[in-house]
Amino acid sequence: YIYIYSHHKDGSPACPLPVSPAAERLRYILGEEDELPTPTLFTEMDTLQQDGDELEWKETARWVKFEEKVEEGGERWSKPHVSTLSLHSLFELRTCLQTGAVLLDLEGYSLPQIVGGSQSESGGLGMGLGLRENISFVLLRKHRHQTKRTKHRSPADVGKTGGAASEERTHTHAHTRTHTRHAQSQSMNDIGDTPSSDQLKNKFMKKIPRDAEASNVLVGEVDFLDKPFVAFVRLAQATTLGGLTEVPVPTRWGPQPASYHPVSCHVICVLFSDVAYKARDRDDLIAGIDEFLDEVIVLPPGEWDPKIRIEPPKKVTPADKRKSVLSLNELGQMNGKAGAGGGLSEDEEMPAPHEMGEELAFTGRFCGGLYLDIKRKLPWVFSDFYEGFHLQSISAVLFIYLGCITNAITFGGLLGDATDNYQGVMESFLGTALAGTVFCLFSGQPLIILSSTGPILIFEKLLYEFSKSNGIDYMELRLWIGIHSCLQCFVLVATDASYIIRYMTRFTEEGFSSLISFIFISDAIKKMAGSFKYYPINTAFRPDYVTAYKCECLAPDPSESPCPEGGVCVNVTDLDWSQLSKKECLTYGGSLQGTSCKFVPDLALMSFILFFGTYSMTVSLKKFKFSRYFPTKLRKLISDFSIFMSIMTFVGLDMLMGLKTPKLIVPTELRPTRPDRGWLVMPFAKNPWWVYVASFVPALLVTILIFMDQQISAVIVNRKENKLKKGCGYHLDLFWVGVLMAVCSFLGLPWYVAATVISIAHIDSLKMESESSAPGEQPQFLGVREQRLTGILVFVLTGVSIFLAPILQYIPMPVLYGVFLYMGVASLSGIQFWDRMKLYMMPSKHQPDFAYLRHVPLRRVHLFTLVQVICLAVLWTLKSTFLAIIFPIMILGLMVVRKLLDMVFSQHDLAWIDDVLPVKEKKKKSKDEDKKKKGKEKRKDKKKTDDLDDEVRNAGVCCPPLVIRSMTWIIPV
Amino acid sequence: YIYIYSHHKDGSPACPLPVSPAAERLRYILGEEDELPTPTLFTEMDTLQQDGDELEWKETARWVKFEEKVEEGGERWSKPHVSTLSLHSLFELRTCLQTGAVLLDLEGYSLPQIVGGSQSESGGLGMGLGLRENISFVLLRKHRHQTKRTKHRSPADVGKTGGAASEERTHTHAHTRTHTRHAQSQSMNDIGDTPSSDQLKNKFMKKIPRDAEASNVLVGEVDFLDKPFVAFVRLAQATTLGGLTEVPVPTRWGPQPASYHPVSCHVICVLFSDVAYKARDRDDLIAGIDEFLDEVIVLPPGEWDPKIRIEPPKKVTPADKRKSVLSLNELGQMNGKAGAGGGLSEDEEMPAPHEMGEELAFTGRFCGGLYLDIKRKLPWVFSDFYEGFHLQSISAVLFIYLGCITNAITFGGLLGDATDNYQGVMESFLGTALAGTVFCLFSGQPLIILSSTGPILIFEKLLYEFSKSNGIDYMELRLWIGIHSCLQCFVLVATDASYIIRYMTRFTEEGFSSLISFIFISDAIKKMAGSFKYYPINTAFRPDYVTAYKCECLAPDPSESPCPEGGVCVNVTDLDWSQLSKKECLTYGGSLQGTSCKFVPDLALMSFILFFGTYSMTVSLKKFKFSRYFPTKLRKLISDFSIFMSIMTFVGLDMLMGLKTPKLIVPTELRPTRPDRGWLVMPFAKNPWWVYVASFVPALLVTILIFMDQQISAVIVNRKENKLKKGCGYHLDLFWVGVLMAVCSFLGLPWYVAATVISIAHIDSLKMESESSAPGEQPQFLGVREQRLTGILVFVLTGVSIFLAPILQYIPMPVLYGVFLYMGVASLSGIQFWDRMKLYMMPSKHQPDFAYLRHVPLRRVHLFTLVQVICLAVLWTLKSTFLAIIFPIMILGLMVVRKLLDMVFSQHDLAWIDDVLPVKEKKKKSKDEDKKKKGKEKRKDKKKTDDLDDEVRNAGVCCPPLVIRSMTWIIPV
Repeated sequence: YIYIYSHHKDGSPACPLPVSPAAERLRYILGEEDELPTPTLFTEMDTLQQDGDELEWKETARWVKFEEKVEEGGERWSKPHVSTLSLHSLFELRTCLQTGAVLLDLEGYSLPQIVGGSQSESGGLGMGLGLRENISFVLLRKHRHQTKRTKHRSPADVGKTGGAASEERTHTHAHTRTHTRHAQSQSMNDIGDTPSSDQLKNKFMKKIPRDAEASNVLVGEVDFLDKPFVAFVRLAQATTLGGLTEVPVPTRWGPQPASYHPVSCHVICVLFSDVAYKARDRDDLIAGIDEFLDEVIVLPPGEWDPKIRIEPPKKVTPADKRKSVLSLNELGQMNGKAGAGGGLSEDEEMPAPHEMGEELAFTGRFCGGLYLDIKRKLPWVFSDFYEGFHLQSISAVLFIYLGCITNAITFGGLLGDATDNYQGVMESFLGTALAGTVFCLFSGQPLIILSSTGPILIFEKLLYEFSKSNGIDYMELRLWIGIHSCLQCFVLVATDASYIIRYMTRFTEEGFSSLISFIFISDAIKKMAGSFKYYPINTAFRPDYVTAYKCECLAPDPSESPCPEGGVCVNVTDLDWSQLSKKECLTYGGSLQGTSCKFVPDLALMSFILFFGTYSMTVSLKKFKFSRYFPTKLRKLISDFSIFMSIMTFVGLDMLMGLKTPKLIVPTELRPTRPDRGWLVMPFAKNPWWVYVASFVPALLVTILIFMDQQISAVIVNRKENKLKKGCGYHLDLFWVGVLMAVCSFLGLPWYVAATVISIAHIDSLKMESESSAPGEQPQFLGVREQRLTGILVFVLTGVSIFLAPILQYIPMPVLYGVFLYMGVASLSGIQFWDRMKLYMMPSKHQPDFAYLRHVPLRRVHLFTLVQVICLAVLWTLKSTFLAIIFPIMILGLMVVRKLLDMVFSQHDLAWIDDVLPVKEKKKKSKDEDKKKKGKEKRKDKKKTDDLDDEVRNAGVCCPPLVIRSMTWIIPV
Repeated sequence: YIYIYSHHKDGSPACPLPVSPAAERLRYILGEEDELPTPTLFTEMDTLQQDGDELEWKETARWVKFEEKVEEGGERWSKPHVSTLSLHSLFELRTCLQTGAVLLDLEGYSLPQIVGGSQSESGGLGMGLGLRENISFVLLRKHRHQTKRTKHRSPADVGKTGGAASEERTHTHAHTRTHTRHAQSQSMNDIGDTPSSDQLKNKFMKKIPRDAEASNVLVGEVDFLDKPFVAFVRLAQATTLGGLTEVPVPTRWGPQPASYHPVSCHVICVLFSDVAYKARDRDDLIAGIDEFLDEVIVLPPGEWDPKIRIEPPKKVTPADKRKSVLSLNELGQMNGKAGAGGGLSEDEEMPAPHEMGEELAFTGRFCGGLYLDIKRKLPWVFSDFYEGFHLQSISAVLFIYLGCITNAITFGGLLGDATDNYQGVMESFLGTALAGTVFCLFSGQPLIILSSTGPILIFEKLLYEFSKSNGIDYMELRLWIGIHSCLQCFVLVATDASYIIRYMTRFTEEGFSSLISFIFISDAIKKMAGSFKYYPINTAFRPDYVTAYKCECLAPDPSESPCPEGGVCVNVTDLDWSQLSKKECLTYGGSLQGTSCKFVPDLALMSFILFFGTYSMTVSLKKFKFSRYFPTKLRKLISDFSIFMSIMTFVGLDMLMGLKTPKLIVPTELRPTRPDRGWLVMPFAKNPWWVYVASFVPALLVTILIFMDQQISAVIVNRKENKLKKGCGYHLDLFWVGVLMAVCSFLGLPWYVAATVISIAHIDSLKMESESSAPGEQPQFLGVREQRLTGILVFVLTGVSIFLAPILQYIPMPVLYGVFLYMGVASLSGIQFWDRMKLYMMPSKHQPDFAYLRHVPLRRVHLFTLVQVICLAVLWTLKSTFLAIIFPIMILGLMVVRKLLDMVFSQHDLAWIDDVLPVKEKKKKSKDEDKKKKGKEKRKDKKKTDDLDDEVRNAGVCCPPLVIRSMTWIIPV
């Protein structure tokens, strides 16, 4: 066997934790300098094979991060998998390194030069001249990569060779002897200095990071060597060596024993790249292997079938961790303790307390928070716009736009009902567009979507009833409430009052967002069920008795009052009553008689099909992202546009059927819904003076309502998991909500506040994932496309919708209810509380491996969940009564309940399931600091990592106090 | 640390393949005797912990096959996972074994005795008396198992200990010193000779095989030892030792270094149980470890996060494989070659050729096959009945029953149409019941379900038309065809003609079963689409104009012919025409007028909801088996009864809605559908004599049709993957099909033949899986509940259904179409051809790791699939024409196509994607035998394994020539 290994020196190490003597040595090597990071290594293994009359090197495996083998028969790359190797081969590698040639920092710019150079240096091994020539000859054979299609094997001979592998090997052997000298110059051609077109065309380049360097492992069996010959070469400079891909080349070649596992070679390259890049001599390399040996993870063969290819882990060990290669013993110890010591060390540790974002710090100065918010957001003014230009934004805009207009129509309709059309669908559209656009332009967190919300609707309803029964002008009263509320918001902003939401933990937040999700779900289902009431089905219908079903309009008795209440007076005999439509008939005072009058065929069932179809198609398309079909990009596109595609499909189906399902009704003219009101509400004249003052009290209620609704949604949006980089601005947000309150009140438009579910959907539709990753590596969540463009577009579109009526009128309402249902279910599915609910139904052995389950007894988890369920049930019940108006205040009640839980649950348990309340946090922090100090004295070398963490933590990242760990995947819209 | 390891000697080894010196030694040990198999080992690891004032042993991990850790915080067992351990700890274990006490075959029946015994023997290690006392004291502490609930931790103190693990450790240490002597006698109580109630109650016992023996590993840290102390004890007899679970106890204890990984201890127990059971002395054990070390699989830490718990592999390495522990080098070599040599050895090997079952051998004697079939089935006569008593049978019967009556009704209806009710639903029910019962009682393969099939239906249709137009009596002609066909079947049986189906490969079989599946799917969808034609929807309906929709019956013009064709003559003026139903109106010659006459509201959409709902609910419930919710048994129950539950749900929904959806119509009286025919068809009198002879020709067609249909289905049922143990009987089956042909012809009932899809559903609903398996181990497919009871019950129920009409009439037809659709889709989903179809849409990196993909280039696979697709398309087209009657003969055409493929594809490729045709098989076989002979000479020691394989192969197992590897999971009904 000939074995060549290539490798280039360049790069820097990391802070090792010294443990063993070998590690000591390594620490010394690696500690030398720290300038450049170790480049990613692309490793290619070629083996020597007989191709017809010629010997050639054929690519058989490659590694970027994980191993991919060439599957000879299938002519394809295997799936990326974790390399497994036998311990035996590792030992042999060690022996080879001890006896073989090790040439570090060889100067060389072409393969022949390197081969020559390495041979002259390794001449000390006592090779004869003939041997040297032979080896160079073999090394300079042509390289064939997997990208080149192999010759088509003739069907006949391949079929017959089955099982005769060993024979073939000897055969090759014999050939080698005969044709050794054949066509030397010819095969040299392909090892040029410039990359071949094949290399440049190779799509695989996309998968390799830009700064990557290559290493080549060449393994072969030749007949002129009587003992294994190994060489390890490291070049001084990374060099592109023609036919060897991007190869800063060679380094180790020589025959080797049969059971030698070439993978181990890669292992040193990649895992020990630090060591290999830095190694001064052979002993350094061997020390590296020894350390590696100490650290490897061993799978007992009886429990594991070595033929199974291990799928790459979902979370790739981060680069820092790889340094722990050098602190293996710590690892071993931990494992050991976890078993031996009952896992005390691992177990009793609390999860890292969540850092408080500076955004919510109490500055103590007048408008201090607001000032900081503006200061934080200013640098992003331009990027907030140009970062919006991306394909993903289109799908996000479409999706959120549909959500917004659905919301606007629904709430518009309800508001119209509640206020006798003082505020109707028209006002709802305009208000949404105005408030949304302004907020997205100037707010601290433009990812938040403003919308009408349930509590406000209920408040308006009660207010209208109150003013109507007391003879107070509703619009004027509302204006004053708006003005007061706006001022109160300013006070809250000026005093940094938002800081109190730091006292909300996951418990409170989950209560709130679950409730909102439930409302979405129940509303969608209620609306759908409404269809069955609105279009009653004649269940008694018998096809055969179709002749018995009719609905006739009977003329009223002329002797009775000819003018029905609310109807139109006509002369009974003037009309052909049987030709009237249902509505006309009733208007003119006629009566309907017949078995089919109160039934509407098909519409209810069709609505149901549209509703359920939209919902389930969206769910399926979302999941399609994880299927095996089609290239990743196409799948991602389908998943991103799933809602849009579902809507289109079912709109199409609806048009095809041609049934009169209820359609979206969009106002077409720009005038107030109620003709007797103008676009501007005047503050004075209609109400007595004391009303202007007294409206302070209801305004207070509205302010609390808005404050809670707004800030909880903001906290959810600003979650740490969303990896927002541009910071947020709770005070700035509240400021603009206040301003918009006043403006909307003057214009007689509804009030707007952050909508949790749509905002989350917005975030989720803008999530970014890493694209070029090593084969087998899972794409990483990088953050959210933070910009103001999508939001602004959504609201401008909402405003323009008034003119889009001809298109929008084809959308059936049940399709939109389906979207609503999807939004509710999707936002629910990622909440930890919901995960814990599911635990009730899972036998413990099937439960997922949640961190808190490892640390908190199941019954405590269940108890905690039960408390949440009870709280939610109470909130739900209250919400259904007139108390809905104080709903946000009930959220404060949740915070009290949470405080009481401190007495039932240990801080340890709460830290895992919920969060620790900030009061205790301060004490803990000082404790932590004490510990940190001690720690620093003990091992200063760990400081760097900590600093790095702190850096990441503080790099302008908005860290709200509430972190819902498992919510990274929520609402994968 | 104290480390105790316990182990019992008993059992036998397997044939090792000697490679290394250590292996040589092991082979010697293990080769000694061969009587008893090594029992399964249950290993428990206890660690010494401080509980209040007392020391106690606390269970922290256990192994049956995989590792389960105690998650201290969560107070639960972790999921079973593959034990990973660091190499370092394995080395330390080796050192410990070299220096510690090794006591083999110790006599001892209680823990104190063992502790005493082991101490006296290990006294040679130079322990002082005090030390000995101390160790016994510690060893005899109370054992606390995970089953006992730990004391509730006070919330306050637990919360504060976060991160202070190391402190606590020292704390425990100090305590140990103080309280060492405390309460010695008290803690002794629990180590009695009898199992405690806790132990007996432990549900975990179910997971441990009956013959299992236990081993205990005790690890602890004490302050009176200044150096590690290890002991390894093996008892001469397995003994139940009270508080140590089921513990044939002790063996190894002693302190150990900190980084020692206790898992490695288990590793020797379980993986080296052969060695550990047989070891004569310390050196044997160490040799075992050395061998183990050589064989372990190593995962590079950089590619794998050691914190990830590795899920147990789906396929557990079989016990034989574990012996390859001793032939690791072979493995290493193979791996090495796979990489280094381009994977030649692994790659070029063909899949094992499929053994031909003796069932299809050509005996050359008269009725030789039939005789063998009867001989094969006779021993199972009784077990065929008593093995049917199982809960699973109920769900199987219900499911298949529903499939059968749906089929009976569908085909009954179609036959009635085709033959002017000479054979209608009534005949279909009776025939199904009669033929099915007889076949299940006497056939060679009672798992096959007889049913009407499409080709027969088409034949009957053509036959009826022919006889009608030529004035030949249909029933008599049919009787003669039946008689001829029956005789022809007898000839086929007598001449062992069934052997020719050996020439059918996967290609042909897949073509056939895909086609049948497509027919099921397309029929279901066609039927459903029919609803929309049968119940047209008035898409122009406007709710407001309900007054305009009516349907009136207009009296015919009295001046015209008063008796309409096919109607009833009435006096026009006698009737109140407006009160007539649609049907009456038309009967009496009236005409319908109005916009709603030709529409039926709601029924079409409701049918669709029922159809699609049944289908998708069944699919979801089937999948529920793999969800995390509810205990496994409940999930299995839900999955088993999924079709039944879906049907019940949607029948319920239908009843709730109360709509007149089309319902199942079951005949209620036992009389022929056509009143002018009797129950018995007379052979003579109605037709001229030459018809009796001439009917031989159509009979030939029917015979071919029946032969192919029957035998292909039989081959699919008798697949190797189904692991049938009672053998099959192709000749016997055909014999009974022939008999039933004649009987049915005499009674004027339809003809019956094996129905592929329902038979597969039958098999799948009777699949058995291993129940008590080690935690983490996947349940193994054990075989099928082979018996005659379910089949008989299904057909008796079908017969009785005539009297079940009052219940069955509630089932809407769309629900049954949904079941049809499910059957088609489910049977399609497991076919390899279908898998390959999917490959077209998958980018190669997402393709599943099918064996053939590793060995055959993707484009060849695609080409093969394309050929199949074209064949299927042609078959489908032909099927839709009058050529449908020669459909089974077209299957023969498929065989010809397959033969031609030999010229396009290499035998190697075909062996992987399809099967090699038996002609070549013979040549290959002789070649193989040659090879085998050589192989035998080379290594006789492998013979045992081969013999075992042969034994399994020949143990009465029915091995049809067609093996569809990936079909184990088809139609998971």
